[in-house]
Amino acid sequence: MTPSLSSVDLCGLTISELAPLLRGRRLSSVDLVGESLARLGRHDPAIQSFVHLSASALEEAAAADAAIARGEWRGPLHGVPIAIKDNYTTQGQPTRAGTGVAALTFPERDSHCVARLRAAGAVILGKTRMHEFAWGMVTPPTRNPWDLDRVPGGSSGGSGAAVAAGFCPAALGSDTGGSIRIPAALCGVVGLKPTYGRIGRSGIVPHSWSLDHAGPLGRSVADAAHLLQVLAGPDAEDPAASAAPVPNYAAALGEGVRGLRVAVIRNHFFEAIDDEVAAAVEGAIDFLAGEGCTVREVNVPSLRYGLGSIFAIELASSTAYHDASLAAGHTAGFAADVRDLVEMGRLVTGPDYLKAEQMRARIMDEMAEVLAQADVIVTPASPITAWRHDESIVQIGGREESVLAISWRLTYPFNLTGLPAISLPCGFDRRGLPMGLQIAARPFAEEVLLRVADRYERAHGWAACRPVLAGS
Amino acid sequence: MTPSLSSVDLCGLTISELAPLLRGRRLSSVDLVGESLARLGRHDPAIQSFVHLSASALEEAAAADAAIARGEWRGPLHGVPIAIKDNYTTQGQPTRAGTGVAALTFPERDSHCVARLRAAGAVILGKTRMHEFAWGMVTPPTRNPWDLDRVPGGSSGGSGAAVAAGFCPAALGSDTGGSIRIPAALCGVVGLKPTYGRIGRSGIVPHSWSLDHAGPLGRSVADAAHLLQVLAGPDAEDPAASAAPVPNYAAALGEGVRGLRVAVIRNHFFEAIDDEVAAAVEGAIDFLAGEGCTVREVNVPSLRYGLGSIFAIELASSTAYHDASLAAGHTAGFAADVRDLVEMGRLVTGPDYLKAEQMRARIMDEMAEVLAQADVIVTPASPITAWRHDESIVQIGGREESVLAISWRLTYPFNLTGLPAISLPCGFDRRGLPMGLQIAARPFAEEVLLRVADRYERAHGWAACRPVLAGS
Repeated sequence: MTPSLSSVDLCGLTISELAPLLRGRRLSSVDLVGESLARLGRHDPAIQSFVHLSASALEEAAAADAAIARGEWRGPLHGVPIAIKDNYTTQGQPTRAGTGVAALTFPERDSHCVARLRAAGAVILGKTRMHEFAWGMVTPPTRNPWDLDRVPGGSSGGSGAAVAAGFCPAALGSDTGGSIRIPAALCGVVGLKPTYGRIGRSGIVPHSWSLDHAGPLGRSVADAAHLLQVLAGPDAEDPAASAAPVPNYAAALGEGVRGLRVAVIRNHFFEAIDDEVAAAVEGAIDFLAGEGCTVREVNVPSLRYGLGSIFAIELASSTAYHDASLAAGHTAGFAADVRDLVEMGRLVTGPDYLKAEQMRARIMDEMAEVLAQADVIVTPASPITAWRHDESIVQIGGREESVLAISWRLTYPFNLTGLPAISLPCGFDRRGLPMGLQIAARPFAEEVLLRVADRYERAHGWAACRPVLAGS
Repeated sequence: MTPSLSSVDLCGLTISELAPLLRGRRLSSVDLVGESLARLGRHDPAIQSFVHLSASALEEAAAADAAIARGEWRGPLHGVPIAIKDNYTTQGQPTRAGTGVAALTFPERDSHCVARLRAAGAVILGKTRMHEFAWGMVTPPTRNPWDLDRVPGGSSGGSGAAVAAGFCPAALGSDTGGSIRIPAALCGVVGLKPTYGRIGRSGIVPHSWSLDHAGPLGRSVADAAHLLQVLAGPDAEDPAASAAPVPNYAAALGEGVRGLRVAVIRNHFFEAIDDEVAAAVEGAIDFLAGEGCTVREVNVPSLRYGLGSIFAIELASSTAYHDASLAAGHTAGFAADVRDLVEMGRLVTGPDYLKAEQMRARIMDEMAEVLAQADVIVTPASPITAWRHDESIVQIGGREESVLAISWRLTYPFNLTGLPAISLPCGFDRRGLPMGLQIAARPFAEEVLLRVADRYERAHGWAACRPVLAGS
């Protein structure tokens, strides 16, 4: 490899930093991918973020280098190793959606997103571990690179841990109730759940199709923008995918935020929150005010119906998908926690489901009212930082609450409403665990959300903090 | 009244015929409404099509006459008496949605459609009887004007019977599985269910909101076009209402049909059909071919899932609406048949509901494929003509089938798909009972459907045939 770039440098670089090196042939994709694989070999036995490594990654890297050498540079992802959550079907690699069953294999062909990444020149590094069928926030047995006794969050826990550990600069995740943003918050990386329909989902194993979103996890807001640029757009096989025009996301970055209107929803999003998380988010709000944003405090009363609404919709939808397997007796593949949830979906009645959709419509209306007078909504991403893998109940807001219930409390409103939302690092708690800030915006206004997140990130530099892995 | 117009003439005239008389002051709205009320007084005790007569109809008629005298003619409906199905809320008149319970009263203010009719100068004559909560195809105790031993169909049975009996030239109905088109077919009048979202539904007591449609019943295709012109357009209180531009529907009439493409869906729509109905519809298809249409025979395999799909959706949606009343113990208002259905809705699970919506999407796709190569679909409207009020099972296609199951078999596919569909008279069976032809078209292509229906109607003149009522 190019002598001036050490392996430590490489594994901490963002796509924005790697792209000019790759394009200018100061760094080869083969060296970069080789370094990723070497680092994975050293550290993933402890972290367990990958379930499959591509056998052809170095070959793909060589092809990327050759194309660049011919002057055929395809954009910032060209030659960059990217990991794929195990619920995206992938050419030449197995897809098991987090299950351990060999028989349950989905087609080995590229899902819409993987095909778009390949077309942009990315090297598909492998498949990351996920909570089974995207139904959970723990992702066993993956560990959090910041503290190996703690969980990475879920369900895209492998993607969050892989990016945090420096195995690759970015990864794909999917988000039905927070499954991109929760591991992003707990692992100290950036996770973007775009507007419902912004990224096509064909080839992703469905969880709950009216709530499912595809999106990237990365090391910086700008990198999330680079991936969104490639992933956004129509998908003939996903009826929900939008043909809305795709703006130039990177162009919105670095513009400043003066005059933007920030809404702070005080009910729901600031109730029963860890004190340190709350203080970090208040600091972020103060920062934005100092940058010339106007800040308005509001309430969204219908959020009290949010949990009942999303739980009914998610349970019913998930069971509608898994029902045929269960009815055929294929239950061995389900972990106990996931099987409970999938069986429970049958107890949601059709009228319950419809009432949940009505409540959802009311929440969407109230959130639209907030965003009629604001450009972004700022909230914490997770009420707590990463919990220990042996904890299932923690103390918060003066009472005990299950980690499952806590973890998605602040993210699921943006699945119900389909509004775009990003989680980005906003500091560390006293145990050195990363905390997450969430910023949401109007439908298809990802550029506004990215602009605000980028401004905060540049001023604070949390993205540059990486965990120290034993032996690295 | 004007001496040259006898009462017999008046009660058989269409809006197209009445409008120039009213506008030219050859006929007063007061005389017309007075004649309607007189005819109602003579014949409705036997037919029982109305549940309420407006106390202010003659006053409204006088106001219409005064406006016309001042030169303020508001269009073809000005001064025309129109009846309203009992599930539309109406200023100054009670709304009970077909129930007998005095306590169950909905607001006495104009629903969206009634307000539009009034703005167009129509005189609101009264409220017509309907099958309770729009959940049935019989409309007890209303009788069919063509044979008082037989039912008018449902759930808009009062509207169908009132128009057929000559009490008013048009009436509003609502259609969730066929409730406009079935009484139209059984009573020998024209019934139009436009595209889902074409007419706003705010102020109509909901039955199943993703299937519910508002629309007119009248004496001719042109009259259906006159009402659609007034009713179509946005409705701020109905989230499903479309802002698609409203064309000039009357302009499409009389144009001829040469070159139009007719699809005949041979499976489902022509299975287990009364022989005389089948012959009449084949005659209509032959007529269109003779007029220069191309006729193509197709199959829509997914229609085999249609009944399961609509029944799950309708049951679940209806129960989601009625659940609170049932849970509060307000069950006395429900007739036994309707209460059974409303209680059954709880047995539809959320996953069942979602699978039904998936099947519906498949049917919509296959119907869209048919309409990509055709301008209209031609089918029978009802497999059978009006049945006796004491019949609940009849023999058809070599087996016994309930009249409920038979009656909506050919209409519900257009509720599932939201496609516009019209029923118009296509002759009489050997017992002298009217038969109905159904014509459907692409979304928001009502003008195409009206053009084909109008051509058939003008060539056959069935619209001029009216039942002879005892004493008239």
